[in-house]
Amino acid sequence: MKSAIFSVGTEILFGQITNTNTVYLSQKLNQMGIDVLYHETVGDNPGRVKKVLARLLMEVDLVITTGGLGPTQDDLTKEMAAEVMGAELKIDEKSLKKIQSYFAKTGRVMTDNNIKQANLPTEKDGFILPNDAGTAPGCVFVKDGKIVVCLPGPPREMTKMFEDSVVPYLHTLTNEVIYSDMVRVFGPGESQLETMLEGLITGQTDPTLATYAKEGECSVRITSKRGTMEEAKAAVEEMAEKVTAILGDTIFSYHDEDLKDVVAKKLIDRGITISCAESCTGGLFAGTLIGVEGISAVFERGLVTYSNRAKVEELGVKEETLERFGAVSEETAREMTAGLKKKTGSRVCISVTGIAGPDGGTPEKPVGLVYICVDFDGKTECREIRVRPVSRNWIRNYTMLMMMDMVRRAIG
Amino acid sequence: MKSAIFSVGTEILFGQITNTNTVYLSQKLNQMGIDVLYHETVGDNPGRVKKVLARLLMEVDLVITTGGLGPTQDDLTKEMAAEVMGAELKIDEKSLKKIQSYFAKTGRVMTDNNIKQANLPTEKDGFILPNDAGTAPGCVFVKDGKIVVCLPGPPREMTKMFEDSVVPYLHTLTNEVIYSDMVRVFGPGESQLETMLEGLITGQTDPTLATYAKEGECSVRITSKRGTMEEAKAAVEEMAEKVTAILGDTIFSYHDEDLKDVVAKKLIDRGITISCAESCTGGLFAGTLIGVEGISAVFERGLVTYSNRAKVEELGVKEETLERFGAVSEETAREMTAGLKKKTGSRVCISVTGIAGPDGGTPEKPVGLVYICVDFDGKTECREIRVRPVSRNWIRNYTMLMMMDMVRRAIG
Repeated sequence: MKSAIFSVGTEILFGQITNTNTVYLSQKLNQMGIDVLYHETVGDNPGRVKKVLARLLMEVDLVITTGGLGPTQDDLTKEMAAEVMGAELKIDEKSLKKIQSYFAKTGRVMTDNNIKQANLPTEKDGFILPNDAGTAPGCVFVKDGKIVVCLPGPPREMTKMFEDSVVPYLHTLTNEVIYSDMVRVFGPGESQLETMLEGLITGQTDPTLATYAKEGECSVRITSKRGTMEEAKAAVEEMAEKVTAILGDTIFSYHDEDLKDVVAKKLIDRGITISCAESCTGGLFAGTLIGVEGISAVFERGLVTYSNRAKVEELGVKEETLERFGAVSEETAREMTAGLKKKTGSRVCISVTGIAGPDGGTPEKPVGLVYICVDFDGKTECREIRVRPVSRNWIRNYTMLMMMDMVRRAIG
Repeated sequence: MKSAIFSVGTEILFGQITNTNTVYLSQKLNQMGIDVLYHETVGDNPGRVKKVLARLLMEVDLVITTGGLGPTQDDLTKEMAAEVMGAELKIDEKSLKKIQSYFAKTGRVMTDNNIKQANLPTEKDGFILPNDAGTAPGCVFVKDGKIVVCLPGPPREMTKMFEDSVVPYLHTLTNEVIYSDMVRVFGPGESQLETMLEGLITGQTDPTLATYAKEGECSVRITSKRGTMEEAKAAVEEMAEKVTAILGDTIFSYHDEDLKDVVAKKLIDRGITISCAESCTGGLFAGTLIGVEGISAVFERGLVTYSNRAKVEELGVKEETLERFGAVSEETAREMTAGLKKKTGSRVCISVTGIAGPDGGTPEKPVGLVYICVDFDGKTECREIRVRPVSRNWIRNYTMLMMMDMVRRAIG
């Protein structure tokens, strides 16, 4: 099956936003064994949307559009798709009610231009894709073996709609079964990972391995395309064992879970309470962990002790320790964790102090120098890390990930 | 002048890399007053490269290609461009010597296929773009008022070549200048914003207005294309005044700054100390603010008082208040702020308590109910907000933005 991804939005042509939708959809479609032949982007220009769509449909079986489903005058992707596919759009009462209740629920005023979002294809021309993350429904047009899938532009809405409604639909169209798993790793960088896995990657046919790099962490996707799901799954699992033999416990997930989710799940499932004291990450660790549903059962307290005064008052760090070793030192980190333990009694207490930059670095204590100290049921481990000083936020993010990983290893 | 950006590379269609080249080139071309009508991407497929290039040249004056200039057999962008432009390629001795010395310098072996990189257009068909960051030279084909610029794929090589050689060349061709500013707004949603600005948007010629929506906030881009930068700038500023007359103080930036940066700048410039106590946002406010450079001068302390016990112990919230009104109540928020003020003495003290969900909601206190209480030099303001219950993280993010906006308004 041949496909094209068609993005609509003047802001993309202005270079105001990076087209991450296309990256996401390309990965998903390829994993499903659907070839992606073209990426195209045009602005909110009805004529060009229509022309490009018509041309793409002469070359591919499936076109997935993103953007241009909003309520504003220049949101016309759906309308142009209907024209090209010779389909008609009608107000869908169910969708309209959903939009209305959405506005009612949130006490916002629904303006007339929102009604146009409920203008959708009927059964004879396609079907509707409900939007559970926003107001604009998506839709699918089907005609003479050609398919146009219209998705909203906001990534959060687009990805949810694609996962929930489009993937199941596309699976009914392809008779090859693809099974794919994402092994998530914290520790080695991408090139290091590739070198480690070289023996498995070179000459790979099925399953295939592909490495991906994200800020501070890496992933290995294992994909198998077989006749049945059982075969594909078995092939992927067999390869996963080979990968594990090489990467060991740097692997924190075999199913594309985020590190924060893996750590939160362990804490919640085992009812292990946690508190944290953050300096350079400044709440990023707490904020990330608390992003996980159900964490309230175990997350006791977070302290952003950014100033020295706060470290002393909140955690009982000794003035002399700060004077003698400095705020960024293992001694200070130790006292922060000890103080936090004393104050909260949480089973896991973790603290961090470091230099996020861009200023504040010295030859002895450069930007990126970080001390993390974690205590689990009285067993304390402290680490000095020299984070690559890419940028303030890169350092903070990497430090947060390192804290998560230390908690993961501490509780086992 | 109309242009298109044409990326060549199978890895892009696989979603293995994010196409940042296109974002960069889009920004640069727009700034130079060159309209970008299309972004296109195909794989390393000679037929498609040739076909797409020929088609684009029927619609635009300038096509900038990236990728496919390497030494391997499937690097054929330059060759296809030559065919489409009816140009011939010849080995350029100067470029060949440069490539040879590059390999000599880096102690790498030069294989024969690297010679193909020196196969370039002659004066009669265009000119060569030297590559000072890699081996593959770029080139420009010019014919009958149509221009094809071939750049390498690696961003570091591409951007350097574009800056050094392409920008000066393009400046000799355009005599229009674009100035554009992004007005950032917190409060009204996108459709509401469009309705408010309808009078200015409809029948817009120059300057043009376009509205954009980002999670929880909105923007209005004002763009003017004139003969000189002065004229364009003046036209944008004049329109900005009209927009201000309608949107008033919901505007927090005229130059595309983030809310967190605007707030942090005010605090830092005026030396106003700040502390926060967070429940449902769980450190997101502190973490976001501390992401801004230089904030350490004014950020005193952050408390993630997630549990009731933490609210009592850290902030002196009364047990009876929690029992009588609940943790999610204005009374609790007030006592959190009061306790924080007492503890830290920071000039700005802000606290938040709410239900981020997905669980924990009741008919009286639904998911998304949030109380924020900010105190600036003793003047306290509390607000009850019912955040759209899109998702746990949407609620937390919107609440964080609302906190930023309340600080912005409090300190004036």
